[in-house]
Amino acid sequence: MDYVYFFGGGEADGSEDLKDILGGKGANLAEMTNIGIPVPSGFTISAEVCQYYYRHDEEYPEDLENEVERNLKRLEEVNDKEFGDSDDPLLLSIRSGAAVSMPGMMDTVLNVGLNENTLEGLVERTGNPRFAWDSYRRLIQMYGEVVKGIEAREFDLALEKIKEEKGVENDTELTVDDLKEVVDKFNEIYTENLNEEFPTEPREQLWGAIDAVFGSWNNPRAKKYREINDLPDDALGTAVNVQTMVFGNTGKNSATGVAFTRNPSTGEKKRYGEYLKNAQGEDVVAGVRTPKDIKTLQDEMPEAWEELEEIFQKLEEHYKDVQDVEFTIENSDLYMLQTRTGKRTAKAAVKIAVDMAQEGLIDKETAIGRIDPETLDQLLHPSFSEEAEKEVLANGINASPGAAVGKVVFTAGEAVEKRDNGEKVILVRTETSPEDIDGLEAAEGVLTSRGGMTSHAAVVARGMGKPAVAGCGALEIDYEAKEFQVDGSTVKEGDYISIDGTTGDVMLGQVPTVEPKMGESFRTLMKWADGVRKLGVRTNADTPEDAGKARDYGAEGVGLCRTEHMFFGDERLPYIRQTIMAEDREDREQYLSELAKFQKEDFEGILEEMEGLPVMIRLLDPPLHEFLPDSKEEVEEFASKAGKPPQEVTDKLEELEEFNPMLGHRGCRLGITMPEIYEMQVGAIIRAAVNLREDGVDALPKIMVPLVGEPQEMKQVRNSIEKKADEVLSSLNSDLDYEIGTMIEIPRACLLADEIAEDADFFSFGTNDLTQLTFGYSRDDAGKFLDEYLKKEILEKNPFETLDDKGVAKLMETGTELGRSANPNLSVGICGEQGGDPDSIEVAREIGLDYVSASPFRVPIARLAAAQMELD
Amino acid sequence: MDYVYFFGGGEADGSEDLKDILGGKGANLAEMTNIGIPVPSGFTISAEVCQYYYRHDEEYPEDLENEVERNLKRLEEVNDKEFGDSDDPLLLSIRSGAAVSMPGMMDTVLNVGLNENTLEGLVERTGNPRFAWDSYRRLIQMYGEVVKGIEAREFDLALEKIKEEKGVENDTELTVDDLKEVVDKFNEIYTENLNEEFPTEPREQLWGAIDAVFGSWNNPRAKKYREINDLPDDALGTAVNVQTMVFGNTGKNSATGVAFTRNPSTGEKKRYGEYLKNAQGEDVVAGVRTPKDIKTLQDEMPEAWEELEEIFQKLEEHYKDVQDVEFTIENSDLYMLQTRTGKRTAKAAVKIAVDMAQEGLIDKETAIGRIDPETLDQLLHPSFSEEAEKEVLANGINASPGAAVGKVVFTAGEAVEKRDNGEKVILVRTETSPEDIDGLEAAEGVLTSRGGMTSHAAVVARGMGKPAVAGCGALEIDYEAKEFQVDGSTVKEGDYISIDGTTGDVMLGQVPTVEPKMGESFRTLMKWADGVRKLGVRTNADTPEDAGKARDYGAEGVGLCRTEHMFFGDERLPYIRQTIMAEDREDREQYLSELAKFQKEDFEGILEEMEGLPVMIRLLDPPLHEFLPDSKEEVEEFASKAGKPPQEVTDKLEELEEFNPMLGHRGCRLGITMPEIYEMQVGAIIRAAVNLREDGVDALPKIMVPLVGEPQEMKQVRNSIEKKADEVLSSLNSDLDYEIGTMIEIPRACLLADEIAEDADFFSFGTNDLTQLTFGYSRDDAGKFLDEYLKKEILEKNPFETLDDKGVAKLMETGTELGRSANPNLSVGICGEQGGDPDSIEVAREIGLDYVSASPFRVPIARLAAAQMELD
Repeated sequence: MDYVYFFGGGEADGSEDLKDILGGKGANLAEMTNIGIPVPSGFTISAEVCQYYYRHDEEYPEDLENEVERNLKRLEEVNDKEFGDSDDPLLLSIRSGAAVSMPGMMDTVLNVGLNENTLEGLVERTGNPRFAWDSYRRLIQMYGEVVKGIEAREFDLALEKIKEEKGVENDTELTVDDLKEVVDKFNEIYTENLNEEFPTEPREQLWGAIDAVFGSWNNPRAKKYREINDLPDDALGTAVNVQTMVFGNTGKNSATGVAFTRNPSTGEKKRYGEYLKNAQGEDVVAGVRTPKDIKTLQDEMPEAWEELEEIFQKLEEHYKDVQDVEFTIENSDLYMLQTRTGKRTAKAAVKIAVDMAQEGLIDKETAIGRIDPETLDQLLHPSFSEEAEKEVLANGINASPGAAVGKVVFTAGEAVEKRDNGEKVILVRTETSPEDIDGLEAAEGVLTSRGGMTSHAAVVARGMGKPAVAGCGALEIDYEAKEFQVDGSTVKEGDYISIDGTTGDVMLGQVPTVEPKMGESFRTLMKWADGVRKLGVRTNADTPEDAGKARDYGAEGVGLCRTEHMFFGDERLPYIRQTIMAEDREDREQYLSELAKFQKEDFEGILEEMEGLPVMIRLLDPPLHEFLPDSKEEVEEFASKAGKPPQEVTDKLEELEEFNPMLGHRGCRLGITMPEIYEMQVGAIIRAAVNLREDGVDALPKIMVPLVGEPQEMKQVRNSIEKKADEVLSSLNSDLDYEIGTMIEIPRACLLADEIAEDADFFSFGTNDLTQLTFGYSRDDAGKFLDEYLKKEILEKNPFETLDDKGVAKLMETGTELGRSANPNLSVGICGEQGGDPDSIEVAREIGLDYVSASPFRVPIARLAAAQMELD
Repeated sequence: MDYVYFFGGGEADGSEDLKDILGGKGANLAEMTNIGIPVPSGFTISAEVCQYYYRHDEEYPEDLENEVERNLKRLEEVNDKEFGDSDDPLLLSIRSGAAVSMPGMMDTVLNVGLNENTLEGLVERTGNPRFAWDSYRRLIQMYGEVVKGIEAREFDLALEKIKEEKGVENDTELTVDDLKEVVDKFNEIYTENLNEEFPTEPREQLWGAIDAVFGSWNNPRAKKYREINDLPDDALGTAVNVQTMVFGNTGKNSATGVAFTRNPSTGEKKRYGEYLKNAQGEDVVAGVRTPKDIKTLQDEMPEAWEELEEIFQKLEEHYKDVQDVEFTIENSDLYMLQTRTGKRTAKAAVKIAVDMAQEGLIDKETAIGRIDPETLDQLLHPSFSEEAEKEVLANGINASPGAAVGKVVFTAGEAVEKRDNGEKVILVRTETSPEDIDGLEAAEGVLTSRGGMTSHAAVVARGMGKPAVAGCGALEIDYEAKEFQVDGSTVKEGDYISIDGTTGDVMLGQVPTVEPKMGESFRTLMKWADGVRKLGVRTNADTPEDAGKARDYGAEGVGLCRTEHMFFGDERLPYIRQTIMAEDREDREQYLSELAKFQKEDFEGILEEMEGLPVMIRLLDPPLHEFLPDSKEEVEEFASKAGKPPQEVTDKLEELEEFNPMLGHRGCRLGITMPEIYEMQVGAIIRAAVNLREDGVDALPKIMVPLVGEPQEMKQVRNSIEKKADEVLSSLNSDLDYEIGTMIEIPRACLLADEIAEDADFFSFGTNDLTQLTFGYSRDDAGKFLDEYLKKEILEKNPFETLDDKGVAKLMETGTELGRSANPNLSVGICGEQGGDPDSIEVAREIGLDYVSASPFRVPIARLAAAQMELD
């Protein structure tokens, strides 16, 4: 078994295909070598060593040391230099690289192999003592921080102090002697912290760095990242890349940078990135100096730019996707240090996929498959209203698009705490680090005063689909005072700000937002998706506005229109309350006839928006007590208006009170015991549809009975619906095609679905309640244990977010099979909230449902997810 | 098609086998005729006519009149008398008779064929004008009441008035002239009420009576009876029996009576019944005169007695069961007017079945099948404590055994109303009638001042298994004043009384009751049943007392021991509350260690009572808020004792409050999020068992995890139980066999039962919660619609009383099959409350469960029901 894979001299042991064992970085270094792209030679220690390491009590395989030595020898031969040689030393960079890139894991130690001896050789060979000493101080700091865990701040402060003493602003201005002073100081910090000398033996440095990479696989931040991203802990481990150093810090003809082959924020086909001259890689990412736009490279180093441009093209053609690269220019020679698939915003992803398909680089199916449906959510979320008055405080880098509004917090901890209290927050930091991951997750968006497009904050925010404004230098953050100053004004913790990740604007207060518009690429992609998918996509909408929006997003009808929300308006609530309080049927019908007028309008609006498409209207579902006032004041107010003693209202409240309302007197149970309400609703639906039809609008109402658990319920309610509808139609001297079906949300309904289907034209799985009952969880209460269940891995996913494919899906399968066995024309769909979740849609497709119904924003997600399933 | 079946002259067209069309009465009259028992000849109009009648708009089949005429002719020939003949008239009795005897249906019209003409013939032939006129006044009254619906009270009052005027006490003392006066008066009442003359045409009388019988099938009382007894309205209808009159009212050598071949109250093998000399049948049943004990007939009419005794023997040998007969002695000649299977108390049923099996009359299997398991309940209910002080107000006839305590009510309406308010009542009436059926059902017991063992109140109460004291003549009931006087003291409506249906005692106040002892017949029957049944029977018991009682009743272990009730004692509650309020694990464990001591004792007690039998102990199930105080006073009291600010308690209450506690943070969810409680309980169980074992007691604990819905829950809880048990056992330096299993009460658990069974030694279906979740009904709230669901026939039965054999049973079947497929040794039972219901036990057996667990009182019911199923 080979543990070490060499690359260099135009060929490599590995290739792109070995990502699992070489990690993404190692595999792509091998691949780039193979396709003739200039890559500093090196070797990759495979991730299998990492697995071995953890399975054998942190011991390496016996052969490893020999293998490393053999490859080191080969590297020395390719470079014609010796590791540790005091004349012309080979220096190495050591970098981690898992199959999946993982922030928080140990990343990079550069300049390994330097000590006072080899440094002399380096000085002699390069004639550049400044560069050599700069490289040395970097080695001590990186080794100290990354391998030994000394706080970065200690080194940074020491460097700042010396810079101050020397009166210089940038580290590039420090002289050789200054840098020697820095090295002494850093050595001191190292010894103080660790009670040992910085190791000057090159092989000790090398193995120290290798140990650190493997060790970092299991550090808390890496574990947290895997948890958030649903990656198993026992995944493939990390590889270690040992590579010949090339130097961006040798002087003015040297530089280092990062770039994307296309804009990862907008998707535009323009090179995108940053570089720093006379710097090493970490300077760009850490945001120590503000880097320059990659486009300026064309002017500053035209040859290098041209070569880079050719490589970009080659990479896109080879990888068929946007690449995110690191490069170094050492004395005008360009080296590629890394390439990987570029992370991008959802907007960019859509544009890039569609563009590439249209360029002929990929086919349409690939384009469809390229987009994670979940990310479309970002595209459909609000942006700031253009008309709104905005008090723009400052402008930073538009690092992750979108609009976020929230209260200012300055620490990740605060962000989490406030979020848990239901508050919306914006995390404001000078810069963020992997420790802040919880806080980034908790915040609506992130604002930093330092760093650029590729800073930690920017990368993470884009990954999470959250707005970010980075490098907003005008901000002066005072963590102690919990405030920031900007242009003379002070913003304190808890003050509202609004950040626009699309423009980089930072605004005071809560700026109003507007609905997004869908771009052309988006519409093109969705059209392609619709051409592929077989599962129907409808929407859950209770208002004409929602119905209209959803139709615009591609909904093929309303899968669930809840009628209870329609009773809550100020004009309406008194009537439903009077209905509940009514003493007899006659009294009740009088108030209901008032409500009927509102209901008819409601239904007309929705049916009109969905002209030609089915609209499934659910009859009243919640228990009546939800409509009664509950505070003492409200009771008194209502009683006085209704001309009743407050006691009567209180008595009714008590009468209707329930121990477990979820399992109580609601849904069709109410329809059966108090049939007037359903009769009113049915009358309003029929009248609305007839009205529209007379105006030439093709209204397609489907009446949905909630909470059926027994075939007799369906039979009796269907009978009374038909009776009422016939009555209304004959009074209108009209006729109408309409359907009657039921929500399937009671486990027993799934088990007796064949009998129920005899009286139902359609089934719509109400997966919210079905999940509650199948698990015995109250959605309102389950928070008390669900988090812990997820943490303890009792449940893999929250079943209210992703349909349970073991229990609930089994009942749905039974219900669908039985239902169709009795009624082959039965249409079957799903209208619970999971209907917009891709994993749940997959379950729906496997069961063989006809459609899913999702909230308007999630309609495009459902369309895309359904298309991807067909392609899989 | 024959509509009319003749019997007489030693042979009959029909037989016992034609019960469905001849009704019980008609079939048995035919059968008795066939086996040579003296029966007045007659014919039966079949129940098919009744069906025809209702299906054809109350018209008779065309042929019917001719058929009746033909049979009437035959009857005249057999009797050598003519119907309507003024010389020697044939008189008839007309009686209803359905396949199932049905109180409230029209019963009997006697003396049909009498008028002023035929009366003269009767006088001449019998030389007994008193008898003839007595018969005539009876005809007018019965015809008026039964056929025409005149209120009985009108005739009764008129008769009473004349008796008063004549200064006589009994109607037998009235002279011929007095009786003529009665007849005049009765004719007057008849005419006043109906605006028509009493029909003197014999055939008009005959058809009037026949019409009335068929018409009474659908009167409200008969319908009510069918509703209460779960008989379909479209059942077989009633037949009409037209039979030659024999007369018990011809003088001193005549009598009429009713009797049982064995005592229907105790089951003793002694003839039992009552008779009246010189009377017609209705006098005995109506309780007009207080009848004599049948045993005195031996002295008074020895020949008739001897003949009767022979007939009794013949009937029991023929029918293989206790017979309930009506007889008439006409001038020393004995005639049997009816025989039917005797209704009996549960106690009597058991004794009779066992005695008959031991006498060789029936086999053991038949004996087992004879007892309705539900009725055993009566045998196991309390009787009055012998030591209790009793203020006996009066003594009546011990008409239906058992002890009842309740508030006095005087009308059926009051009884229903108070019962609905949750009060216990005793219905006190001079006598009861079919109109009182609702009230009898609502009352704990019934007390009447008139009537005997076979009075309406007595018969109905025995059927319902309710205590009754009848004919308690010392009571003077004043309905208007709503009170009764007895021996100088006054008892008002709402006062408590206690009645002892076993002794006939009526006592003031609430007399304490004691547990019943099981008789030898009962034990014998149960032993036979145990020999037959295959399904195990365990008990639900939370205390050593219950466990002991249940073991005495034959429980083969504890199927469900709920531990939460053990926390409610005054000594214990503070500790569980402190546990809930504890700030950290350490704090919590301190309080739990106090509770552990109590728990260990609890478990020791139960395990000891059930020595050698399994005891399934369910770990804590309810949500924690159930243990916290809820009134302001209680909160303050607890807070002050616990040394905490009341606000802290209130805050905790709010924190723990749930919208739907049934679906909340309880069961193993609590065991997982707060593992200390289960650990405490497991420790206490293990310690208790080890302790007992050291004392040589074979303790068999089985630890049951509640509310598992996900295999991972079972796995993790099982692991932590085993860990704790190992810890305790190793600290005790001991070992122990115990099992770990789970309640299956979440639908999802049924669907994933195979995975769960990998970590479970047993399943116990918790059918209460499983029913709640499968239907989506909260048991606490479902009352709001369940009654209406039953009334509207949406549900056939209350699923919380009888296991739903369509939905819930389907899930149980899935759960059982999957569970056993993964773990062939899995023991599977049921421990919900339906476990003691015979229909539910049948479902359990069909699914193939190993055992059912029932409350102690229902253990014998379950044993018997399980045996009967094997015999079916």
